[in-house]
Amino acid sequence: MRLIADNLRITQKAIETAVADKDALPLQTMAKRCQMAGANGIDINSGPLYRDPESRMAFMVEAVQEVTQLPLILDTSNPKALKAGLLACKTPATLNGLSLEPSKLEHILPLAVAHHAELVCYLLYPNGHVPPDSTERLNVAVSLYQKCLEAGVEPDRMIIDPVVVPLSWQNGLFQAREVLTVITTLPELLGFPVRTIAGLSNLTAGARDPIKKGLAELTYLPMLAAAGLSMILMNVLNAGSVRVARTCRLFSQESIFSWEMVG
Amino acid sequence: MRLIADNLRITQKAIETAVADKDALPLQTMAKRCQMAGANGIDINSGPLYRDPESRMAFMVEAVQEVTQLPLILDTSNPKALKAGLLACKTPATLNGLSLEPSKLEHILPLAVAHHAELVCYLLYPNGHVPPDSTERLNVAVSLYQKCLEAGVEPDRMIIDPVVVPLSWQNGLFQAREVLTVITTLPELLGFPVRTIAGLSNLTAGARDPIKKGLAELTYLPMLAAAGLSMILMNVLNAGSVRVARTCRLFSQESIFSWEMVG
Repeated sequence: MRLIADNLRITQKAIETAVADKDALPLQTMAKRCQMAGANGIDINSGPLYRDPESRMAFMVEAVQEVTQLPLILDTSNPKALKAGLLACKTPATLNGLSLEPSKLEHILPLAVAHHAELVCYLLYPNGHVPPDSTERLNVAVSLYQKCLEAGVEPDRMIIDPVVVPLSWQNGLFQAREVLTVITTLPELLGFPVRTIAGLSNLTAGARDPIKKGLAELTYLPMLAAAGLSMILMNVLNAGSVRVARTCRLFSQESIFSWEMVG
Repeated sequence: MRLIADNLRITQKAIETAVADKDALPLQTMAKRCQMAGANGIDINSGPLYRDPESRMAFMVEAVQEVTQLPLILDTSNPKALKAGLLACKTPATLNGLSLEPSKLEHILPLAVAHHAELVCYLLYPNGHVPPDSTERLNVAVSLYQKCLEAGVEPDRMIIDPVVVPLSWQNGLFQAREVLTVITTLPELLGFPVRTIAGLSNLTAGARDPIKKGLAELTYLPMLAAAGLSMILMNVLNAGSVRVARTCRLFSQESIFSWEMVG
């Protein structure tokens, strides 16, 4: 399980200001902190970037690339920003992401094909709503898989996001269990070692109590790992979560284990 | 997932002395602390009880029953002690436990039948050794299941322990993963909702660093829960572990969930 930093997000005021001012330092400081903390990749969440999408995404990518060689995930619904980000990326980038929403199929899928990019695929209905259970998510996965194949995206460039929803939703806990089922079922269903990604902080979105948030996340994280999750999108500056994620990784990988590696 | 306290064990000096002196207070204090901490059952680990097995186990059971009505698990390899414990128990007790070891089959299986007791069944080879992987454990499970059926133990009175081994073993990490596979596979293999139990502290037996021990246990616990474990045998006086175990329970049960219940 690879750790993807979700820390570089435009919803953080300091990042928003830095992007508007084209001030690289705050982005670079954050990127370096994420790398130091053990991130295996960085999600650049620029938001929709209604103004100057191309120059702003290119700026973000270039700023981050000056201080780290970690793989980047370009996280925006704006196809213009995605394209600019792809062009600015020195290393193969991942687009975040595709879904069955018509606008995404129309604009993002061709981008992935043209740039041979990896592609996060969300298990959402064509209207953007979250399916109610694992069966419906798996149906969506089959449709998305077919769309990708038809367009020319090889299966090993797909990274499926089963969509973690907040526990505070009326059926949030059920959904959390269904997500685990989806992760374990996908490889058998699609017939190849499907890679998966999940956003851990979604689980406690909207919740205020930091102790409860931490407890819920630290409990769910090993469940995701045991289900076979490939990539966890998380706050890598939370040292406790990172320690658990790294321990999860020891449990879930086939490589040599040493007790010394725990911690 | 039910929390079974492993705290009442003769290897603790205070408990050993209390049993030798027939001093009920230390046992009762511990039992009450376990109940307060959220235990759903108490494992009475008396050790082999070479001296006075009957009177000592009866004393332990009676002492504990005076202060709590929690279900008791009688944990000793000594059939005389098990029988005395069963006779002293006011509520249905669980025997801990059976394996394919000939002496266990000869002495403990008939006891379970005669007293209609529940029975922890260890997935060990007839020589008491730990099987190397999940396939071998599942083979043992089938053999044990047949032995129980032949003897007259109904499937719903079996509680299978897949045997967690220390991570410090050369293949400890592999074994930890195999145990998860066993827990998820058993219901399908045996064709009924098999109950399972696992000893969490076994995972870090022999390890000294308390931070690493805690991290390994807190990471593995949700994996066990997500695999469908029915009962976790653990130190219920470790408040951090209990908080995670209770959160696991929220994630793994079908009942109504409220964010307020986290914590």
